[in-house]
Amino acid sequence: MAKRKKKTHVKGNMLIAQSGGPTAVINQSLVGAVLEAKKHDCIEGIYGSLHGIQGILDENFVDLKRETERNLLAVANTPSSALGSVRKKPDAEDCAKMFEVMKKYNIRFFFYIGGNDSAETAHIVNQEARRQKYELHCYHICKTVDNDLRQNDHTPGFGSAARFVAQAFMGDNLDNRALPGVKINVIMGRHAGFLTAASALARVNEDDGPHLIYLPETTFKMGQFVKDVKAVYKRLGRCVIAVSEGISDARGVPIAAKLSSAAEKDSHGNVQLSGSGALGDQLAGVIKQKTSITRVRADTFGYLQRSFTGLVSEVDAAEAFRVGAAAVKSSVKADTDGSIAIKRKKGKRYAVEYKRVPLKSVARDTREMPANFINEAGNDVTQAFIDYAMPLVGKLPRIGRLKACPVKKC
Amino acid sequence: MAKRKKKTHVKGNMLIAQSGGPTAVINQSLVGAVLEAKKHDCIEGIYGSLHGIQGILDENFVDLKRETERNLLAVANTPSSALGSVRKKPDAEDCAKMFEVMKKYNIRFFFYIGGNDSAETAHIVNQEARRQKYELHCYHICKTVDNDLRQNDHTPGFGSAARFVAQAFMGDNLDNRALPGVKINVIMGRHAGFLTAASALARVNEDDGPHLIYLPETTFKMGQFVKDVKAVYKRLGRCVIAVSEGISDARGVPIAAKLSSAAEKDSHGNVQLSGSGALGDQLAGVIKQKTSITRVRADTFGYLQRSFTGLVSEVDAAEAFRVGAAAVKSSVKADTDGSIAIKRKKGKRYAVEYKRVPLKSVARDTREMPANFINEAGNDVTQAFIDYAMPLVGKLPRIGRLKACPVKKC
Repeated sequence: MAKRKKKTHVKGNMLIAQSGGPTAVINQSLVGAVLEAKKHDCIEGIYGSLHGIQGILDENFVDLKRETERNLLAVANTPSSALGSVRKKPDAEDCAKMFEVMKKYNIRFFFYIGGNDSAETAHIVNQEARRQKYELHCYHICKTVDNDLRQNDHTPGFGSAARFVAQAFMGDNLDNRALPGVKINVIMGRHAGFLTAASALARVNEDDGPHLIYLPETTFKMGQFVKDVKAVYKRLGRCVIAVSEGISDARGVPIAAKLSSAAEKDSHGNVQLSGSGALGDQLAGVIKQKTSITRVRADTFGYLQRSFTGLVSEVDAAEAFRVGAAAVKSSVKADTDGSIAIKRKKGKRYAVEYKRVPLKSVARDTREMPANFINEAGNDVTQAFIDYAMPLVGKLPRIGRLKACPVKKC
Repeated sequence: MAKRKKKTHVKGNMLIAQSGGPTAVINQSLVGAVLEAKKHDCIEGIYGSLHGIQGILDENFVDLKRETERNLLAVANTPSSALGSVRKKPDAEDCAKMFEVMKKYNIRFFFYIGGNDSAETAHIVNQEARRQKYELHCYHICKTVDNDLRQNDHTPGFGSAARFVAQAFMGDNLDNRALPGVKINVIMGRHAGFLTAASALARVNEDDGPHLIYLPETTFKMGQFVKDVKAVYKRLGRCVIAVSEGISDARGVPIAAKLSSAAEKDSHGNVQLSGSGALGDQLAGVIKQKTSITRVRADTFGYLQRSFTGLVSEVDAAEAFRVGAAAVKSSVKADTDGSIAIKRKKGKRYAVEYKRVPLKSVARDTREMPANFINEAGNDVTQAFIDYAMPLVGKLPRIGRLKACPVKKC
């Protein structure tokens, strides 16, 4: 991991692919990488693989040099993986096949845009290349709405998803204020509560929701949940709650997984949590049963959080582009591989830098919310989290509230 | 309903309230009415009732003359009923009490912002006033995301909710294109399918979803649904579906209501359909069971459709403001009451006018999608609907798609 200044001597084609859950800005990284690649002579063809490594196995490539810059920039501003995605962990046989293909197409620069599972895939590919002494500049380009990649202050995709969650809660809090009751909103995030925590950014006035926030990092106790809701409802006559889809019991079993006897799993072993309203409905049922509150509703924000059109954090979009470009810039130096991590600079004003880190250090294992972001009771976030997250989301819409001076009773 | 030019001789206070489900632009109507009221000498105090008619029964009024114009305009741009809302149908005793209060506060101009249930409430109040020979200029100001008010070409709130649905489907279609499977999205709309139909506005390319649209106006047959999904999946390898929460069987029983033995009802007799993911999950379960498709997901857009912050149709916002103002303008003429309806002018360019119609003609009964908006198979909308709805939603975000020229196989 020494700094490599020297350019690589290898010349060849570049292959880029997208993997895992889409985000609102994942194409910014794709386009950032492609436009940067055009500046380097050592990169000849610029190929996109359709549906991640599946496209490599099937030799299903598209020629990204034949895209106009205008179209590329339109794609950059479009949510969800333009090259298609996949959730697939390559086995030994897949790896052998992928190398055959890469050699055949003289791929020397490989970029895989994704989360920790995708970093692991890139790492496996990279190790195989090294073992076979095939010069491949293998890079992972980070993205995930979960914000759970190690080495990163935050990840592209999170800021825009967090903005969606914050704007949704701003409105939903007002909806709940107009028609009071208990409202439960289930947010994405398997092991990391960052996105659920972003609901706190919606608060403007002291009595604004979310009034309670439950994260996967804290053990979820149904009895305490009911007590918490009752206490807020008694104080405000209403209660808005943010719940992560990944909330788990003391043994680490997701509450959502308990509901489904035949829970679906992908090839990375992840249980399906999104794409169902079951958790929210179950929690609403418990509140109806255990309290005298009659109006109890649950919404599950679902895939809208990661793929909504026309709603991004500008900071997030710009950073996603730059991470893609930075990976390509780094890859043309001799003997390099890695993942480009976003590091926040110290200082009062928000600023970041992009650093190359080892693939292994990002792959597989994820990170969770640090303890100082979660309040002691385990049902809210701290100011430290708000200070961390606000610059990533950008300026939120202004909320007006009536002064509401009472008319003297006759 | 003759045209009244003469100003009323009565002087007194104005009372305005909001009722039913909030919308993204319901405060535009409130502020449009308040700012207009300030121009008329016959309107003395401008009071807002908190939580609809409940605030009248409780004499819970706020002084809207004490709001700055700057704050009012900020409130206008904020979703959800700023005065609070209620779902309550007044009984005879309530009516008697309300008049006592209105007389005590010398209320002579009453405006009730809401849907068909709210129009019915305004109509009851109005009849009572006429019976008691109390001069009350009683107006209903239309709003509903369902777009189901009679007399109206469309209603304030619909355009913004439709825009949310369209932008959501634009992104969700791309998400589904990246990670193919069957995706079911459940949209608000008890009896009228307008909002579900708005999902069709998301289509840009020929193969874009939603590929199937199920409306409450068409009998929902589970067997046909499965057949439709299979056919689309066979053709495209994926399928995005828009389903109205109100889809019903041949006997008119909502599919969602069948799921819940103890379905919750409000005082207008409406069964709770929103605030639960059960319908989507059930439909996803049927597809998993009856086909060999493995990736099947369901999202229920829920309250986000009506209260999301920072996302409105500009046309909708402007019209909502003008409907509020038009109601007040009309109310200061002698012997008037009614509801202000939005009528579309004939001609190629989109334009509307605001017309006073009898309260009774908007109250209680709703309208559904006209037959020419629904395709013959009952699983999609027609171009006539697209032409109708597009101007209400405004220009949608531009979607980029890679040209994706295949690389020749080695």
